[in-house]
Amino acid sequence: MAGSTFGNLFNITTWGESHGSGIGVVVDGCPAGLALSETDIQSYLDRRKPGASRYATQRKESDSVEILSGLFDGKTTGTPISMLVRNTSQRSSDYSEIASYYRPGHADYTFDQKYGFRDYRGGGRSSGRETIGRVAAGAIAAKLLTELGISVTAYTQAIGGIEIPNPECPLEMLDIAEARNNPTGMPDRETSQKAEAYLKQCMENLDSAGGIVACRISNMPAGIGEPVFEKLDANLARAVMSIGAVKAFEIGDGVKVSSANGSANNDSFRMNSDNTITKATNHAGGILGGISDGSEIILRAHFKPTPSIFQKQDTVNKNGENITIQIKGRHDPVIVPRAVVVVESMAAITILDLLLQNMTSRFDRIKTFYNK
Amino acid sequence: MAGSTFGNLFNITTWGESHGSGIGVVVDGCPAGLALSETDIQSYLDRRKPGASRYATQRKESDSVEILSGLFDGKTTGTPISMLVRNTSQRSSDYSEIASYYRPGHADYTFDQKYGFRDYRGGGRSSGRETIGRVAAGAIAAKLLTELGISVTAYTQAIGGIEIPNPECPLEMLDIAEARNNPTGMPDRETSQKAEAYLKQCMENLDSAGGIVACRISNMPAGIGEPVFEKLDANLARAVMSIGAVKAFEIGDGVKVSSANGSANNDSFRMNSDNTITKATNHAGGILGGISDGSEIILRAHFKPTPSIFQKQDTVNKNGENITIQIKGRHDPVIVPRAVVVVESMAAITILDLLLQNMTSRFDRIKTFYNK
Amino acid sequence: MAGSTFGNLFNITTWGESHGSGIGVVVDGCPAGLALSETDIQSYLDRRKPGASRYATQRKESDSVEILSGLFDGKTTGTPISMLVRNTSQRSSDYSEIASYYRPGHADYTFDQKYGFRDYRGGGRSSGRETIGRVAAGAIAAKLLTELGISVTAYTQAIGGIEIPNPECPLEMLDIAEARNNPTGMPDRETSQKAEAYLKQCMENLDSAGGIVACRISNMPAGIGEPVFEKLDANLARAVMSIGAVKAFEIGDGVKVSSANGSANNDSFRMNSDNTITKATNHAGGILGGISDGSEIILRAHFKPTPSIFQKQDTVNKNGENITIQIKGRHDPVIVPRAVVVVESMAAITILDLLLQNMTSRFDRIKTFYNK
Amino acid sequence: MAGSTFGNLFNITTWGESHGSGIGVVVDGCPAGLALSETDIQSYLDRRKPGASRYATQRKESDSVEILSGLFDGKTTGTPISMLVRNTSQRSSDYSEIASYYRPGHADYTFDQKYGFRDYRGGGRSSGRETIGRVAAGAIAAKLLTELGISVTAYTQAIGGIEIPNPECPLEMLDIAEARNNPTGMPDRETSQKAEAYLKQCMENLDSAGGIVACRISNMPAGIGEPVFEKLDANLARAVMSIGAVKAFEIGDGVKVSSANGSANNDSFRMNSDNTITKATNHAGGILGGISDGSEIILRAHFKPTPSIFQKQDTVNKNGENITIQIKGRHDPVIVPRAVVVVESMAAITILDLLLQNMTSRFDRIKTFYNK
Repeated sequence: MAGSTFGNLFNITTWGESHGSGIGVVVDGCPAGLALSETDIQSYLDRRKPGASRYATQRKESDSVEILSGLFDGKTTGTPISMLVRNTSQRSSDYSEIASYYRPGHADYTFDQKYGFRDYRGGGRSSGRETIGRVAAGAIAAKLLTELGISVTAYTQAIGGIEIPNPECPLEMLDIAEARNNPTGMPDRETSQKAEAYLKQCMENLDSAGGIVACRISNMPAGIGEPVFEKLDANLARAVMSIGAVKAFEIGDGVKVSSANGSANNDSFRMNSDNTITKATNHAGGILGGISDGSEIILRAHFKPTPSIFQKQDTVNKNGENITIQIKGRHDPVIVPRAVVVVESMAAITILDLLLQNMTSRFDRIKTFYNK
Repeated sequence: MAGSTFGNLFNITTWGESHGSGIGVVVDGCPAGLALSETDIQSYLDRRKPGASRYATQRKESDSVEILSGLFDGKTTGTPISMLVRNTSQRSSDYSEIASYYRPGHADYTFDQKYGFRDYRGGGRSSGRETIGRVAAGAIAAKLLTELGISVTAYTQAIGGIEIPNPECPLEMLDIAEARNNPTGMPDRETSQKAEAYLKQCMENLDSAGGIVACRISNMPAGIGEPVFEKLDANLARAVMSIGAVKAFEIGDGVKVSSANGSANNDSFRMNSDNTITKATNHAGGILGGISDGSEIILRAHFKPTPSIFQKQDTVNKNGENITIQIKGRHDPVIVPRAVVVVESMAAITILDLLLQNMTSRFDRIKTFYNK
Repeated sequence: MAGSTFGNLFNITTWGESHGSGIGVVVDGCPAGLALSETDIQSYLDRRKPGASRYATQRKESDSVEILSGLFDGKTTGTPISMLVRNTSQRSSDYSEIASYYRPGHADYTFDQKYGFRDYRGGGRSSGRETIGRVAAGAIAAKLLTELGISVTAYTQAIGGIEIPNPECPLEMLDIAEARNNPTGMPDRETSQKAEAYLKQCMENLDSAGGIVACRISNMPAGIGEPVFEKLDANLARAVMSIGAVKAFEIGDGVKVSSANGSANNDSFRMNSDNTITKATNHAGGILGGISDGSEIILRAHFKPTPSIFQKQDTVNKNGENITIQIKGRHDPVIVPRAVVVVESMAAITILDLLLQNMTSRFDRIKTFYNK
Repeated sequence: MAGSTFGNLFNITTWGESHGSGIGVVVDGCPAGLALSETDIQSYLDRRKPGASRYATQRKESDSVEILSGLFDGKTTGTPISMLVRNTSQRSSDYSEIASYYRPGHADYTFDQKYGFRDYRGGGRSSGRETIGRVAAGAIAAKLLTELGISVTAYTQAIGGIEIPNPECPLEMLDIAEARNNPTGMPDRETSQKAEAYLKQCMENLDSAGGIVACRISNMPAGIGEPVFEKLDANLARAVMSIGAVKAFEIGDGVKVSSANGSANNDSFRMNSDNTITKATNHAGGILGGISDGSEIILRAHFKPTPSIFQKQDTVNKNGENITIQIKGRHDPVIVPRAVVVVESMAAITILDLLLQNMTSRFDRIKTFYNK
């Protein structure tokens, strides 16, 4: 595939550039009979909308979604769901200068190398606006998962090294309502305020910050994921690493495992009082051998600092000259708060796809399904 | 796809269990005209073979490859290359006990949940022996890349927290010959000896260790990778995370980026004296916007400690009882040294596939190709 | 995949129902640098537009295309090209009755069986309007092929058994300009007039007719197509059989080969005076072993008669009762003339995709491409 | 994909050349828990084995299958099933002459054009022996379908224009036992004897014959197939047209529909006495809108005459000279009888794959599956 489609049974195809007519996605393979409306989608899109705080770009983007197909009588029909968000706030004049040089940390140079030229307005296809399609599709995946009892919850774990206390605590100890309402996306008010102060400092320094998004998937059935190349964690890694600016991915204990011992890293199995099986600990992050084990799935994505900073920077121009530039425009000092819902969306899409695929793993269940 | 196939234009399909008749792979889409022999494959397979040192399992596995198809007159024909390694050293009796319980850190439980039962002999399909197919295919991908001037080099960066000095130094400062000959795979003799002492200690403690494998890809052309879901880094992440026991993946500065500032993380573009473009630094690890930028690609995989340890461990059996077990048999105290060539193989396969796909990115080049 | 995406390197994802907000397509993998405008697309769409003659539905559908992404400075950028055609002429009231029963020859029953309910307005996703997306994408594929010197030309060969004379004559002997201007799509005025008279008779009988669309691909390079499952003819078969109402597909001599002898069916190779290789005959239709042989590719699609006829018909309703119905509304007495451009589009998309894939078949050419 | 893999959830990857070490297939996505043994596979392979009659090549090929993976305790484990058939009877010397020229009707020329050279021994990858992998996989698919109550039955409908009487009669009126035992594969002894006489004549003329294979799928549930590009008939067309020598594909009334009227071609729905829905006729061949309607599925494949004939033929050699050749060796005068089981296999694989995919079409059923 050429790269704009993700997923197999439940799959999404995104399209659109920052300054084209719009941004959108086609969701194919959505099962028939799910109640769905534009409100379901819009509430997700609003979570990635800029302009909500001083730490996000002040561009006014209404980002209103229109569902063009796939619904009838308020329910999904099983046919492709096409969604469109018109671009409305783009001022192409802002970007005329950057046509002539390569911004450090951006994809300007690599697009030119790959395609011979590029749509330089606002980053074109490499703009963060591409994620609108992912989030619109993620809203659908999340709704399906919710009705199956599975919840996907992402939040900001750290910004610029300022981390929430006890990041591995149970999900119910995190203040997710707080995370949805403060400008950092952190589920802890005090840490959020520290991070906000740090971001203020970054902005004064004409600089930017990175951060960590964590995501928990609760109530996963065991058995989801395929054992070799379509491992649940491998597919989650690809899903999350395909979000621009993510430079590292961790599942469970993540980078810590490389310095751990087996005796500490292994999770013991134990019987629950209701005769179900659980694990005494969850270093594995809910996945063993690429397949969900029924515990909470925990993943983390490390985002680099926004490459568009207002300091002077060295680069080259298209004439092959070393130059010094100073980027103008409206740019988030940190992209992490707006990326939270993108991580959540990509995780939801990945899990749903493998959940559907898993329906065919056992022949006895197939026979039951077809009443044989 | 059901999960045993990886890649698009250049793709591999692996099969086989630890204690079945054999292990193998079908490589499809290998371009015609590459000189290839079983020796090319065997030299790669020998790098993952057990029994080479006291820190790997003492099982004797000859792991001799037979190429069954796809060659004629010593060259690839463009048709599928099927390769077979017979299992010869398996003693099923070793594993009879584990049929009745779930080993911590292994896929026993998740396979039972997914499939209703499992081939418990040596881990079945979830055994590390599955990687034989990956390495056999990786040998072909690496040979193709070498002829295109691209080299893929993996090595052990750390074991149990003992890390080589200056891990981000230029590749030519690393002693790769040393890495290929010592039992740790580390490109530094002194560190390797420290790690060996640490592993000796682990074995005395009936414990195991994890570690880090790093991989460098040199001489990559710019422009490789697709901009959205098939990003070069996203596909590398999936490729590497699909290797059993990998719990985190980093590209370039990796987890460090989440606490960095943009001014430090951005890599300036600079003109070389020969009028080509380079970067003053390489925090990005050779990839911008999912597309190679012509710099060295640097990635790291974090492996968990071998789950098979000889200490007593708590778990449950199939009767739903809490029990204490003590695993017997032959197990590596660390899998990292043998995983080095697996990481190298998966990276080579991923890069080659995207390199082939990139041939269609520009219409002017297509016209030249077809002489129009 | 869930069924709305077609193709690999050059792929299309269609969406939309007859009476939803619109119909569209996302084209991914279009090489960068092709000059393209909405005019290129519209001229193709106009060829499938209804209302052009008395033998097509009298619905007024402007079917104006909007290109939403993938273009910059009038050229393709290599990123997805999203195209939208708004539905404007739909009168849902026309279709209220058919909600309660299953029309013979339509997909009403099978959609209900598959999805549990259906968008019954105008056939929903099974409407012929779905082909708008295919044609919009086909216009791009055809333009790319034209610049590579390859032409794809479809036309009506027969309607209701009335066939053009000498259907296997060289393409240049067919009056394609006539085919593009008469209401049957036949490249022979006299036969077209006979077919028109036949259709007039069908309409008077409240009946409908089927027909044959032929398609010729000229100037194909040899070597295109993959030898086993992605044979050029197999992929063309799937492409064309995926058009609603096609019940048979032929390549070259087609159904005649089953009663032929090898001595008559084999095409001798011969040397041209310019030292190139040709075939003395072309029973094979330009494909040997699934790979193009450099001769003209010839295929034919057999379309069933329009199932919506105005005669009384027996069927069942949702209450499980045998009933007699009489379909109302606006329906083509034959769909073949409007299907010509759909066949042409699907053929163009298929050929282009395999042409791109073929660039990786030989390692010597890959080395040349990457200057090694 | 590069062309040797077919199917999505249930997929097969074939490999091997006529005169390489062997031929094989990897079946991925086979559900766990199916009782399976080599006997199940061998009985299918024996149906395509040469040497059974005077109308098939007299080569002695034992074609014994070895299952290398994917079974445990006599049942499928859900992991890939790798199967190997060693080539044993190949005499490469027979083929030395054909290295220098292009046989009419064969893929010699197109392989050279595509790959730059070819394995000329016995046709290499384009040999009919490639179908061994398809049949081995088809045996598994057919066994799964049988346990789901679905039967797939192919037979020879015609050879050289000699057709069984009443080819559209109900399946139970055909003498399938006869078809499995006579040398033509025809379910009618008298016609078979006529066809045998015809083939004898062909052989005396140093000529060959083509024929028609028909295939019926009984007891199909309604709702199988995807509505746009993955239509059941489109995928069957690709599956069957990917078998070498097939030049036309028909579903239901096939080529006849192009000259039929809607009133005759439409199938009325009717209520059965047990309150289920049926169709009064089955011109559609069991598929409406690309989705099974619960009626018998009927398809036909038209095979060209064996291209290897013993008459003198014109062709060119590698020096670019027009020459006359006379092919030697052992060749079937008609390939149809041995192709019957290949058609059956490809149909079974296609249907099973879409049957699995269909499990995700309705959200209510997914919720039931996951007990929500």
